[in-house]
Amino acid sequence: MPLYKLSFFHFGGRAEISRLMFAYAGKEHEDNLVQRENWPELKPHTPFGQMPMLEVDGEKIGQSVAIANYLAREFGLYGKTSMESCQIDQVVCLIQDLKNAKVKAMYEKDEGKKAELVKIHTEELIPKSLAFFEKMLKNSQTGYFFGSDITLADLIVFDLTWKLVKSTPTFLDSYPLLKENHNRVGSISQIKAYVDAREATET
Amino acid sequence: MPLYKLSFFHFGGRAEISRLMFAYAGKEHEDNLVQRENWPELKPHTPFGQMPMLEVDGEKIGQSVAIANYLAREFGLYGKTSMESCQIDQVVCLIQDLKNAKVKAMYEKDEGKKAELVKIHTEELIPKSLAFFEKMLKNSQTGYFFGSDITLADLIVFDLTWKLVKSTPTFLDSYPLLKENHNRVGSISQIKAYVDAREATET
Repeated sequence: MPLYKLSFFHFGGRAEISRLMFAYAGKEHEDNLVQRENWPELKPHTPFGQMPMLEVDGEKIGQSVAIANYLAREFGLYGKTSMESCQIDQVVCLIQDLKNAKVKAMYEKDEGKKAELVKIHTEELIPKSLAFFEKMLKNSQTGYFFGSDITLADLIVFDLTWKLVKSTPTFLDSYPLLKENHNRVGSISQIKAYVDAREATET
Repeated sequence: MPLYKLSFFHFGGRAEISRLMFAYAGKEHEDNLVQRENWPELKPHTPFGQMPMLEVDGEKIGQSVAIANYLAREFGLYGKTSMESCQIDQVVCLIQDLKNAKVKAMYEKDEGKKAELVKIHTEELIPKSLAFFEKMLKNSQTGYFFGSDITLADLIVFDLTWKLVKSTPTFLDSYPLLKENHNRVGSISQIKAYVDAREATET
């Protein structure tokens, strides 16, 4: 097995999907939690001056989606056919759009504009994406997004919904299939163990 | 061969990489150029209320990156190994970041802020990405981004550099390997024919 080393800050963000895949697949890796004060020193040694960075036997990979797709292929979480991989990509892209909209709101300096962007993210973009996900689960009829088993799609959506449900336990009540999928993924023993451990160390 | 139908507006944008792949691979498809006035009618019939949309034997796919990756897999343009696919994904992600920054600038209403965003895109983000691309070509030493043949990476970068070189013919002079790659891709007969035809119809 290759030596994996994942470098990112002490929070979930764009690295969390990769951590979830490592946990689910039970693959050993070094989880390099980078302190803010050490980031300037590491930055020039990353491919694109950004984290997360994954090293595979020393080969450096940047860009969170490239990392997630790579691990998904290696761990058998990228679908069984080219069309399933494509369907998974669609979910990853929708989640990226949500993350980008959130980051845009976070970095907005004008307070009025920021409030507007947060409102759009929370009240428009998230519900719209959750409705797309609910529809996908309705189409698949297996309890998983695509095919008959868990993929990157289930895990990346779980990463989103976990935060939503944590702050508002009833959040998924209007999306029954998504709620069921969320609970199914969250009750997989290695995911549950990972999330419980994460909860215990979060301050 | 499946029946492909690609729907997008009458410009390149996020559909152009797929058109370039169709052209390169010589695959028949319907290029459904949607008039602005017909978009509201089509919108609810797309997967996510967005274009481009690709239909494969009637199955609808949204999200430009999911579409591009799918066609790249189908047309043998997604690398020969999982690591090559990952390297290609990195390039696609970098280009996405550039596109998102450009769109953000385009939609900014405050003129001062807009000018600032355009400046960042043009003078910081584009040169930074071109430097990453130059380095990748230096590493590969084959004249192509990864491996010994053309992939999605070469084509998606060509789509970017073509516009830059068109407006400023000397644009790539500081990036000799990228310039060489650009000229190599642009002189492939089916790409040249496609670009010439596109030029002839552009107003």
